Amino acid sequence: MTRPIIGRVAPGPRRTTGSPAPDQEPATARIAVDLLGGDHAPAVVVDGALRAFQDDPSLHLLLVGPPEAADPILAAVDPVERARLGMLSVPASVEDQKQDQTGAGVRAAVRAVATGQADAAVSAGNTIDIVLSAARTLGRWPGVRRFALTAALPTAAGRLVLLDVGSSVDTDPDTLLMHARLGAAYAAVVHEVAEPRVGLLTIGTEKGKGDRLRRALPPLLEAAHLPAGARYVGLIEGNDVVTGERADVVVTDGFTGNILLKGLETAYSRLGPPGRGALEVPRAALLLGVGGTVVVCHGAASGPDLAAGIALAAHLHRRAAVAAMVDLIPHNEVSHDG
Amino acid sequence: MTRPIIGRVAPGPRRTTGSPAPDQEPATARIAVDLLGGDHAPAVVVDGALRAFQDDPSLHLLLVGPPEAADPILAAVDPVERARLGMLSVPASVEDQKQDQTGAGVRAAVRAVATGQADAAVSAGNTIDIVLSAARTLGRWPGVRRFALTAALPTAAGRLVLLDVGSSVDTDPDTLLMHARLGAAYAAVVHEVAEPRVGLLTIGTEKGKGDRLRRALPPLLEAAHLPAGARYVGLIEGNDVVTGERADVVVTDGFTGNILLKGLETAYSRLGPPGRGALEVPRAALLLGVGGTVVVCHGAASGPDLAAGIALAAHLHRRAAVAAMVDLIPHNEVSHDG
Repeated sequence: MTRPIIGRVAPGPRRTTGSPAPDQEPATARIAVDLLGGDHAPAVVVDGALRAFQDDPSLHLLLVGPPEAADPILAAVDPVERARLGMLSVPASVEDQKQDQTGAGVRAAVRAVATGQADAAVSAGNTIDIVLSAARTLGRWPGVRRFALTAALPTAAGRLVLLDVGSSVDTDPDTLLMHARLGAAYAAVVHEVAEPRVGLLTIGTEKGKGDRLRRALPPLLEAAHLPAGARYVGLIEGNDVVTGERADVVVTDGFTGNILLKGLETAYSRLGPPGRGALEVPRAALLLGVGGTVVVCHGAASGPDLAAGIALAAHLHRRAAVAAMVDLIPHNEVSHDG
Repeated sequence: MTRPIIGRVAPGPRRTTGSPAPDQEPATARIAVDLLGGDHAPAVVVDGALRAFQDDPSLHLLLVGPPEAADPILAAVDPVERARLGMLSVPASVEDQKQDQTGAGVRAAVRAVATGQADAAVSAGNTIDIVLSAARTLGRWPGVRRFALTAALPTAAGRLVLLDVGSSVDTDPDTLLMHARLGAAYAAVVHEVAEPRVGLLTIGTEKGKGDRLRRALPPLLEAAHLPAGARYVGLIEGNDVVTGERADVVVTDGFTGNILLKGLETAYSRLGPPGRGALEVPRAALLLGVGGTVVVCHGAASGPDLAAGIALAAHLHRRAAVAAMVDLIPHNEVSHDG
């Protein structure tokens, strides 16, 4: 297993204190945005980029895709705003011509991160395309075989890390064990949780309940060394993901996690206006375990969803979160310790 | 496969028009309630029974368990109310002595249905105990190998049938195909939906997305003969379970279904008071495919949850719902047709 080349993908200023103080100008974040990814691309991608600018003028955005896709949309944009959007033109490569054309944007966006043109990549494209691009171009953290698409959910008890939410389906105990480590690192670095509580999502908390995969995991999790002083707190259920009272990190397979996330997101957004019970869930997730900052939005992402993904990518870059998380994962740890 | 003995387990008056008219006295429903099932048994079971009576004076309730468990609680109950609760004393059998004692209540409650002492059984006990008792004592519908624990969820577009929510984990395509039939019958009979739309819960609706189990199913579902004019409408996602806009019946494995149900239930109940966005979900599910009316409540059920389970059991009995659903499932249909 080779070490990933973290240095060149998270080159922003390393801070030890997290976000800049309110009176400080936030550091520039150069975000490569896949112009072709998502059901409503490229229109919502341009809309999302402009919205992200409004909230954060220090962003440098690089729209990645063929100019002919962006030009008609950009022509309708206010010239002052248009001038703030960079464009990384992507002529179709031989590879792209062979493959699904819509993956060209994400491949080029991820390459922009690898070559240092951008600090982070954002895409609402097909998760499989994003995972393959990221694995090939940016590499994996030590010991990571399968990435974890990682979402942060609001709860009354604070933010909760849910992983995986769609990249690792049909998975195995070793993968979920590594994802427990990745999730603990995320909670510690991004949510600043001390000694995160890690729970395993299952049905019924009695010993022996759950499916084959879940029944195999508790002994491995009990024996595992988790980063950042994290501890395994046992089996949890669907309701615990809503309350947040029992765990800061919830480990599950990508099939279950995706379905639960999409259900809760929709429930939270439908049940009345924000502030009166309803909760806003950022519809964007970090691809964890990749040697760089890659944020994935829903295929059905709207402009505000893309803007939230861009904001998340910028936030993670400014905190040098990926490098800080890699530092927490023991490099000599093999995935089936314990 | 033998035909189940439906006649003796759903002996109530057969109606063709569904619920009685408002000015009619509802028919008696004799419900056997497992006194020992659930985390907070027997106290919440007695509480649930008394609450159920308040809403529906035509109920006949039979508390099933050892008298020494009920006596101290019943002693504190108003004598007038106490007189309305029947008690089916369960001395521990040799089998019960060998097995987990807490399963004794559900085994006796299910036996009471089989012998005609009760019209339906309700338990908040261990789902595995309930499934085993029901299979042994009441039998299965023709063609059914694995039961489907079936929940009804409220949506803005009407009620939605979600199955399985916890009895069939580690399952297979044939089981989910049969569950599609069972769910269609439930939607037609219990929710009175004409030509129910049946969706398969997965992640991403593009062809080839999802796990191995889900990828195997669409051709089987497309070719299947579904009851009550139901039709397969394709792949759906977690958000569709909340909106209810795309399907009346949602088919999934018991692991995923249980986690989604518990997440949504909790989200719906937490987000503000009912009527202002929040939705009440009946925390009780019918065990579908059993030759009798068996309703399962959460292990963590409260008194109101038990009361909702009892009300559901009474409602299903009065509609002769189980017999009506069996009639909709073609008896010569093997589970791997199509």
